[in-house]
Amino acid sequence: MEKLHAIDREYRHLERTIAALQWDQETYLPPEGVEERAEQLALLEGIAHRRLTEPETGKLLAEAGSSAENPRGDASLPALERDFLRVMRRRYDRAVKLPPDFVTASARAEGLSQAAWAAARQNNDFAAFLPHLRTMIGIARAKAEYWGFGSGSSTRYDGLLDIYEPGMGEAEIGVLFAVLRNRLAALLKKIQGCTPPDTSFLKQSFPIEQQAAFNQKLMDYIGFNRRRGRLDTSAHPFTITLGSDDIRITTRYFPHNLLSGLFSVIHESGHALYEMGFPPELRGACLADGASMAIHESQSRFWENVIGRSRPFWDGLFPLLQNFFPEQFAGVSAGHWYRAVNEVKPSLIRVDADEVSYSLHVILRFELEQQLIAGALEPEELPAAWREKTKEYLGIEIDASSPRSDADGVLQDIHWSMGSFGYFPSYVLGNLYGLQFTRKLRQDIPAFDNLIAAGNFGQIHTWLKDTIYRWGCRLEPAELLQKVTGEPLRVEPFLEYIEGKYGELYH
Amino acid sequence: MEKLHAIDREYRHLERTIAALQWDQETYLPPEGVEERAEQLALLEGIAHRRLTEPETGKLLAEAGSSAENPRGDASLPALERDFLRVMRRRYDRAVKLPPDFVTASARAEGLSQAAWAAARQNNDFAAFLPHLRTMIGIARAKAEYWGFGSGSSTRYDGLLDIYEPGMGEAEIGVLFAVLRNRLAALLKKIQGCTPPDTSFLKQSFPIEQQAAFNQKLMDYIGFNRRRGRLDTSAHPFTITLGSDDIRITTRYFPHNLLSGLFSVIHESGHALYEMGFPPELRGACLADGASMAIHESQSRFWENVIGRSRPFWDGLFPLLQNFFPEQFAGVSAGHWYRAVNEVKPSLIRVDADEVSYSLHVILRFELEQQLIAGALEPEELPAAWREKTKEYLGIEIDASSPRSDADGVLQDIHWSMGSFGYFPSYVLGNLYGLQFTRKLRQDIPAFDNLIAAGNFGQIHTWLKDTIYRWGCRLEPAELLQKVTGEPLRVEPFLEYIEGKYGELYH
Repeated sequence: MEKLHAIDREYRHLERTIAALQWDQETYLPPEGVEERAEQLALLEGIAHRRLTEPETGKLLAEAGSSAENPRGDASLPALERDFLRVMRRRYDRAVKLPPDFVTASARAEGLSQAAWAAARQNNDFAAFLPHLRTMIGIARAKAEYWGFGSGSSTRYDGLLDIYEPGMGEAEIGVLFAVLRNRLAALLKKIQGCTPPDTSFLKQSFPIEQQAAFNQKLMDYIGFNRRRGRLDTSAHPFTITLGSDDIRITTRYFPHNLLSGLFSVIHESGHALYEMGFPPELRGACLADGASMAIHESQSRFWENVIGRSRPFWDGLFPLLQNFFPEQFAGVSAGHWYRAVNEVKPSLIRVDADEVSYSLHVILRFELEQQLIAGALEPEELPAAWREKTKEYLGIEIDASSPRSDADGVLQDIHWSMGSFGYFPSYVLGNLYGLQFTRKLRQDIPAFDNLIAAGNFGQIHTWLKDTIYRWGCRLEPAELLQKVTGEPLRVEPFLEYIEGKYGELYH
Repeated sequence: MEKLHAIDREYRHLERTIAALQWDQETYLPPEGVEERAEQLALLEGIAHRRLTEPETGKLLAEAGSSAENPRGDASLPALERDFLRVMRRRYDRAVKLPPDFVTASARAEGLSQAAWAAARQNNDFAAFLPHLRTMIGIARAKAEYWGFGSGSSTRYDGLLDIYEPGMGEAEIGVLFAVLRNRLAALLKKIQGCTPPDTSFLKQSFPIEQQAAFNQKLMDYIGFNRRRGRLDTSAHPFTITLGSDDIRITTRYFPHNLLSGLFSVIHESGHALYEMGFPPELRGACLADGASMAIHESQSRFWENVIGRSRPFWDGLFPLLQNFFPEQFAGVSAGHWYRAVNEVKPSLIRVDADEVSYSLHVILRFELEQQLIAGALEPEELPAAWREKTKEYLGIEIDASSPRSDADGVLQDIHWSMGSFGYFPSYVLGNLYGLQFTRKLRQDIPAFDNLIAAGNFGQIHTWLKDTIYRWGCRLEPAELLQKVTGEPLRVEPFLEYIEGKYGELYH
């Protein structure tokens, strides 16, 4: 066990070193340093991969009684060690099952594909990306096969899902998403018949220095410990862990869009609080990690939406925001602001979507990638299928001959160009987990809204730590949800939240 | 040879990864991330060391005909390959000759020593540092012995010098420094009898944002390519190479001291221009490195002093500086500024010293560390010896009972706490090399002063590239100097420069 822990620690340090190089690449790397940085990263990734997949690791896991069928090993071991074995086994199996040549070839193809995607998006040229998309689908299918996708009834797509959301299958997701899709599409239609809120005061200039200064206050306000992390800017917001006490987030600023930078900071802070909150006994080990992509997303969306887009939150914080932008917000009340930042307005772009339409963007992608992986949809049919579903779910007609028809359509997200099929559902599952957790939290802390209005997040932090963060990835998502709420995954808590909040907002 | 190049490339990438972690540590690392960063660095350094010292490396070097006696190997190889073999052999020998246990124990002792030094300096408590100093001297002596310090007549100190200044011995340095010491001390005495320049306008407030903005312009002005590097802030200025096209410098800002941040930027830019200037055929290889610490220092001091503290430079640039600080410099001329930034005023602190007294600070340290390594001076005698030499060379009396007697005396520099004995001479040797190069440069480019006044550095950059940078570390310092100037190392060019410049400034 000691030797396994040593391997884990080393692997972890290498992962964090890679994270440091990646963080730097997205924030401060001089433009011409990009090429050599890619070589450095490839070398480090190779070293990390070799460290994990040394035959010694497999031998030690087997000696500890861990196998693919019984990953937790000998039942007489302490629970913490058994969970550790499960996670090590999972990572080891996933890594050794892919032939090294396949890994190298996929990495190269992924690089080419991403570059082709970026150019294709720029030029609204789906045809230029098509051969790469085909390759990426092939690689994803091959990966699922190498990993073996579980028992007889499971599908290739299930095998891919398992990377991001262990234990979750496409059939289960399909059932949940079908309900969501119908209820959300219906709600959206109703809202579109209502009077929109006044958002004119958002269409002003917000100097970037002021935005950045406010965001530092905002981070302090919600309890981001800046001795253990920091905020920088990058092209796309992200959270990255460089060490147990070094969790960094980024945002981006637009001088005429205050909301983008601000809500990204709350969202990424939600991820960071999770990473900062793992208990000491998991420190530096593979168990100090989120339970899954969707559980991570449940945390970021909880802070961004449930707290950050709530009325009590801005009752407490709006006066400070007003101090930072006194001219822009003269005569604007917390109530005006609250309604404006919750405007529902379907658009083509997922990352700009409101809470109601967001899930529809994701469901659309889930359904299409399911079909791509199953071979039920040919890659060349994708743009047309995209337009059809966009019309059906979001009520937006895309003119196929418009100059950004595919750029703002099927080419808008990077995921498929990287071969990340099975990732999209995490975003919506995160919403579902998040609201199920919230319901329990509200039961345990009845003063929830008052605490938020008072900017007093101590009890909420403690609850999250004691209930969710403490487990790291010791539990699979479904186990964690069961332990916290006593229930399996359900759509109702999320739908009730959405229908309640937006029913009220739009009368 | 191909395999050796592959090892070199990998080792290089690892070195650069370590550099990235170090840069981050000094610039952006959140305070509580320090501990884990140290573990990451230790792991990476171990991996890099093992990569270099694999038995394969020794075998390949031997097969290529390289040995300790004939490091360049087979005379039939191309010159570039022979130089490559010499440098690889040197690094390999230096690394394999130290027993791994000794390396680990020294690294630990160094860590403790540095921490003890920082506290001792804070508390002006030399006694607290003394046991660590003794350990560091012991380690340095042991290192010199492991490496074997050359033929019969060479000393342990020669063995240490060889790390920083290959081919240079303490006897040779002693002769040069004795002349320097006498001539500089005499000049200093004369200057102290003269009227000092007016520096009152430097004693104002210079907002840090303005200083930083000016420094960006300054970097562009002297030809630092910001697509291949960047400027950040840190506690102590430094230059670090993260990649062939990623060379970063740092500076520090004091609101009441404009000169410190500004001249650090020119100094570090001089280092960076050297690193950016290695030719394509050395790219990514161990040969793309400075010829020695002192040659590197010759480049930084050339830009900082020969150019950056010259009259023509500020005739060209002072109007821009004035634009950035119009109130502070109202009524100040380029001439006033030139005289003020060249004020000669001996002080206790080396890094704040002017061009005349700077070398005396270094010679004092050189003489003391020589004696420490030879065993001619006991560590406990160091503070008294320090005070004595400070009085003799700089004319400053240190009161042994004053509250900063050792903090601003023998404890002021970090070098000895890290065991870096033999490093100090590089600073003065850099001055000597630099002015010998400059003399040749002035012969080759007679319009030197006019070009500088015009802010037109193209020809100077080209000369440095074609004459110095192009060699990387293919040549040892003495070979490089011979190739460029046709001479061995001499003190005259530097002394002529100093005596000429300050003779004129102080009439």
